[in-house]
Amino acid sequence: MIKAIIFDLDNTLVDFMLLKRAAVDAAVNAMIDAGLNLSSEKIKEKINSIYDSEGIEYQQVFDKMFKEILGKVDYKIMSAGIVAYRKAREAALKPYPGVLPALIELIKMGLKLAVVSDAPSKEAWLRLSYINFQHFFDVVITYDETRERKPSPVPFNMALKELNLKADECLMIGDWAERDMVGAKAVGMKTVFARYGDTFNTENPDSDYDINSISELINIVKKENNVNE
Amino acid sequence: MIKAIIFDLDNTLVDFMLLKRAAVDAAVNAMIDAGLNLSSEKIKEKINSIYDSEGIEYQQVFDKMFKEILGKVDYKIMSAGIVAYRKAREAALKPYPGVLPALIELIKMGLKLAVVSDAPSKEAWLRLSYINFQHFFDVVITYDETRERKPSPVPFNMALKELNLKADECLMIGDWAERDMVGAKAVGMKTVFARYGDTFNTENPDSDYDINSISELINIVKKENNVNE
Repeated sequence: MIKAIIFDLDNTLVDFMLLKRAAVDAAVNAMIDAGLNLSSEKIKEKINSIYDSEGIEYQQVFDKMFKEILGKVDYKIMSAGIVAYRKAREAALKPYPGVLPALIELIKMGLKLAVVSDAPSKEAWLRLSYINFQHFFDVVITYDETRERKPSPVPFNMALKELNLKADECLMIGDWAERDMVGAKAVGMKTVFARYGDTFNTENPDSDYDINSISELINIVKKENNVNE
Repeated sequence: MIKAIIFDLDNTLVDFMLLKRAAVDAAVNAMIDAGLNLSSEKIKEKINSIYDSEGIEYQQVFDKMFKEILGKVDYKIMSAGIVAYRKAREAALKPYPGVLPALIELIKMGLKLAVVSDAPSKEAWLRLSYINFQHFFDVVITYDETRERKPSPVPFNMALKELNLKADECLMIGDWAERDMVGAKAVGMKTVFARYGDTFNTENPDSDYDINSISELINIVKKENNVNE
């Protein structure tokens, strides 16, 4: 019997890649507008290479970009970029269509909800809080709690312990086959692949289910629990 | 002949104390709402004492508050506070009434405009950029450029050098008598006290002028330059 759904956060609950792209695009345009004399492509290439080396959550990306390009920070241009980045990020930070009603329906069905994310605590919680999702989840496990990333069993087992449930009572949904599906399956959870959030063109996620909309979760739980409508 | 106006930033161009108060109030309410079990007064007292010891621009104020109160950061509660803080700050970050038309009028009169602020570069420029003021000023001197605070002559002299003007060709406007008026007067500038931004109940700012609205600057310049309307 499924008693809890464990969600990955980025690209499963929120469209993180869209958010990053929208924010970076806005920042690049604003910095060119403020006088940065480089092509949009060159600036994005630099930003992406910094994200690749420092991680996608790196908070000093523009400072580092200026130091590498100009040898020092141009605060006038950078501040134009940061303001544009923040405004675009806030505008683009939304749950996928159907997520909010699905969460409410799952709660009504008596299920517990959890998040297991590899993002740092502060950034994960900020994203949850911006979309007013911070009160939906009984358990939120981020990178800071375990210092281990999926597919390590550690974050999954910590979620089970805090939920006070066994692995076969939980269903894990995520967009990253090698992390979310492999890791959840290894500890004995049922798995749902969030096809709508897939950024790798995953052919075979090796999951129990494969969905194009989060609303499909409701029927999956009903089927698993043999509920007749 | 006055050829440039040098502005202090905080509490002269923007109502910084209002902004801080609005942002902190919103954050405290959000954190109590998210489960922080302390009185609003106690939380504000803690936040203010951290600002007093670390400086009003300190960016990790909530992290430090949680560590001092609970021994660790509660990310769920803190993120609610940060989101509320950011939204309230953006809403409250506005130039004083009359600032924008006054700047435009001064530019039309052929004057150069500058900022001399004790704030860190990044924060000063972010505030200017949020209100779309970043292109108005020919020269912006912040703490990072000189590592000296007003009333030191260093930031004033750097502004004069970059403006390529003499001290008696410049008029300094600011809300802090001991820093803005004393410092500008010492290098030989005319001074205007921004009474509307005064947070110290200053009795005698010892300035050449004392104004209740920034729009009064226009007539002061006309008078100084013997322009007949």
